[in-house]
Amino acid sequence: MAEHDTGGPAVAPGGRIALGVAYRGARYHGWQSQPDGRTVQDVLERALGQFAATPVSTLCAGRTDAGVHAFNQVVHFDAPVDRDEFSWVRGTNRYLPDDVAVQWCRLVDARFHARNSAHGRRYRFVILEAPVRPAIEAGACGWVFRPLDGDAMRAAATHLIGEHDFSSFRAAGCQALTPVKTMRSIGVERRGAYWRIEFDASAFLHHMVRNIVGCLVAVGSGRQRPEWMAEVLAARSRDAAAPTFPPDGLYFVGPYYDPAFAIPEHTPAMDWLV
Amino acid sequence: MAEHDTGGPAVAPGGRIALGVAYRGARYHGWQSQPDGRTVQDVLERALGQFAATPVSTLCAGRTDAGVHAFNQVVHFDAPVDRDEFSWVRGTNRYLPDDVAVQWCRLVDARFHARNSAHGRRYRFVILEAPVRPAIEAGACGWVFRPLDGDAMRAAATHLIGEHDFSSFRAAGCQALTPVKTMRSIGVERRGAYWRIEFDASAFLHHMVRNIVGCLVAVGSGRQRPEWMAEVLAARSRDAAAPTFPPDGLYFVGPYYDPAFAIPEHTPAMDWLV
Repeated sequence: MAEHDTGGPAVAPGGRIALGVAYRGARYHGWQSQPDGRTVQDVLERALGQFAATPVSTLCAGRTDAGVHAFNQVVHFDAPVDRDEFSWVRGTNRYLPDDVAVQWCRLVDARFHARNSAHGRRYRFVILEAPVRPAIEAGACGWVFRPLDGDAMRAAATHLIGEHDFSSFRAAGCQALTPVKTMRSIGVERRGAYWRIEFDASAFLHHMVRNIVGCLVAVGSGRQRPEWMAEVLAARSRDAAAPTFPPDGLYFVGPYYDPAFAIPEHTPAMDWLV
Repeated sequence: MAEHDTGGPAVAPGGRIALGVAYRGARYHGWQSQPDGRTVQDVLERALGQFAATPVSTLCAGRTDAGVHAFNQVVHFDAPVDRDEFSWVRGTNRYLPDDVAVQWCRLVDARFHARNSAHGRRYRFVILEAPVRPAIEAGACGWVFRPLDGDAMRAAATHLIGEHDFSSFRAAGCQALTPVKTMRSIGVERRGAYWRIEFDASAFLHHMVRNIVGCLVAVGSGRQRPEWMAEVLAARSRDAAAPTFPPDGLYFVGPYYDPAFAIPEHTPAMDWLV
């Protein structure tokens, strides 16, 4: 892998590395590196740098906001040193706090790019429906105390499937080049007292899942009809939608790629939650 | 309820109150009140005192150790003021931190006693079996990186069913009057990458679940045969057993009582975990 004649980027001694990273977002100011150093990217790059004994910069599949968790965030970088795959996992985890852990490592083709190669991304939102707020699962799920109507939410969600301009669900500071994304599926399921809403799309705008969840809850609790979702989408204006739902119940399930890259799409914690 | 002619304790203006409390134990020095005030009982009694505007002392069904969680800890006290049931829930939760929440309240017969009336208690232990440590679920599950054999663990567990002297699984500082307890059932199940071990017994000695789990993991990982569990039990000596397993995966599911007391045995978070 050290020599190649493509027009791709130069490959460092250890080749291009992809990592899967799981984290609980509660204590972090989101994914993206910041001067205060209290982001997931900051703690990951510090740990990689300590293990490799030289600075390492990473690029991720999907930047997550403050308080958002990830089952399988994917990052890539060009390895400054030559180590075997599991050494990157074990060695980096030694320097990571207990709420962040590298789950797997793959030496990948130099054309692999964690963000640009992704065919799509999946997010999961978990909401507790109960008269009393959560405790054990505080910070790890949303909460509604009024009953939600699953059929109404499913009917509302169908209006979002397909290629659309999602400007109505886009935060003001969103840096995406275009508001047009393809929503492939939205699953709404109930398990015990918990609702689980699964999103699969080409890509997501800033706050898009939280804004859609805010609207789904407005429909589920009877404040809006399912058809209102089509009106919100058509308005292409943030003012049309419900307030942004808090981040606690939001999980970045992970990106998916051409199977040729052989990037794992499953980590154990995906089986942990309801 | 304010007047009665039984030999029971005097009943305060609001009658005897039972509460169900859920908590994540990670940040607390266990249940039992301590001078440093950093226990679950301390934060609960402070919150009850703030809501009632007068000091409140509680008595619990099962004291949990540092780092141990509870789905349905049951406490009772004699209400210094008259409030309806849901006011105790909502009013107390307003003063509790986000990892502790009262789940329900019942005005109960004055003969009800959270500890002495309990017919038994249930505990759950959750263990991740994976090459890499947890992140999202750090502090909320145990971890083994070697595969466990469920049949071997189930075979070992059968030796503990029934009335036995559990001294081999008893911590040095245990204050129980007798080491003889009745183990009613031990369930060993696997869901995805997680093992779930459920215990039902008349009562538990200090560290009893963690010590039994240490032995079950010794058997499950092939370091000991299932029959070794019978030898450990018969030895009636802590030296015979495996090291105490860490508390992270331990949940006090809750006590159970005579149905006449109508004490709830289920809280939503029981459906949350694998």
